[in-house]
Amino acid sequence: MEEKEQKIMVAVDQSQESMHALSWCLSNLISDTNNKKKLVLLHVKPPPAVRSFDTGGYVFSPEVIAAMEKYSMELANSVMDKAEAICNAKDIITERVIGMGDAKNVICSTVLKLDADTLVMGSHGYGFFKRTLFGSVSDHCAKHAKCPVIIVKQP
Amino acid sequence: MEEKEQKIMVAVDQSQESMHALSWCLSNLISDTNNKKKLVLLHVKPPPAVRSFDTGGYVFSPEVIAAMEKYSMELANSVMDKAEAICNAKDIITERVIGMGDAKNVICSTVLKLDADTLVMGSHGYGFFKRTLFGSVSDHCAKHAKCPVIIVKQP
Repeated sequence: MEEKEQKIMVAVDQSQESMHALSWCLSNLISDTNNKKKLVLLHVKPPPAVRSFDTGGYVFSPEVIAAMEKYSMELANSVMDKAEAICNAKDIITERVIGMGDAKNVICSTVLKLDADTLVMGSHGYGFFKRTLFGSVSDHCAKHAKCPVIIVKQP
Repeated sequence: MEEKEQKIMVAVDQSQESMHALSWCLSNLISDTNNKKKLVLLHVKPPPAVRSFDTGGYVFSPEVIAAMEKYSMELANSVMDKAEAICNAKDIITERVIGMGDAKNVICSTVLKLDADTLVMGSHGYGFFKRTLFGSVSDHCAKHAKCPVIIVKQP
């Protein structure tokens, strides 16, 4: 019987916990004897000019917005480089996907769009204040993502 | 390098969803090439004489309590038999653990007591009204269980 390729999506951010979730995934879900699994790394950038300041109502100059955009792109690349290094150390090839917007919604919609079979993520991430105000991203995804969700906490 | 045996705990109840979570676990976490994994089936019975009636303040006769106890034990055995049949069909040996009390607390404390490495469960289960009143069991476990938690929804 021909098995469908399994697509495993790992949501990564700058937190140690998300890198731990990725390592857990490599050790527990992706065995080297089984090539029918594809790993997708997803990083979600905040929407432009909203960032952590979205409650303040500031209007930013184009220079500030450009600087924030550059910072957010650099952060995304640095997160992806770090995640890929962890995968490469285990000879696992990955695909990068960078999303933009509200993390919890973007993660759930990317699961649908890419038809992911499993979503792996840390339980924190995306900032203490946002989490306190709006609930954790992982709570939302565990409820709403259209595939099994694995929440890996930092030990 | 000697690997530690991985202990995977699956919380099962009478819901179709929890059996689906178990099947997912067998297909995705337990490969037959790897014997270093042990599967534990956990079913949590409600505490005696509380059942679904715990908001009514009824006092039950000993006969009614005994009948409820018998029903709850039969239900536990029927759930376990069903879960074991799914595992046996894939030649996977399991261990049964039956707990009693508030499901979310018992699941988290059993993870600790048995030193489980992974917890697998459905996202619903344990009744609509309880879930609405007290929040879902899986939400609680995803936050509080001391190991990675996999929430598998019925497709």
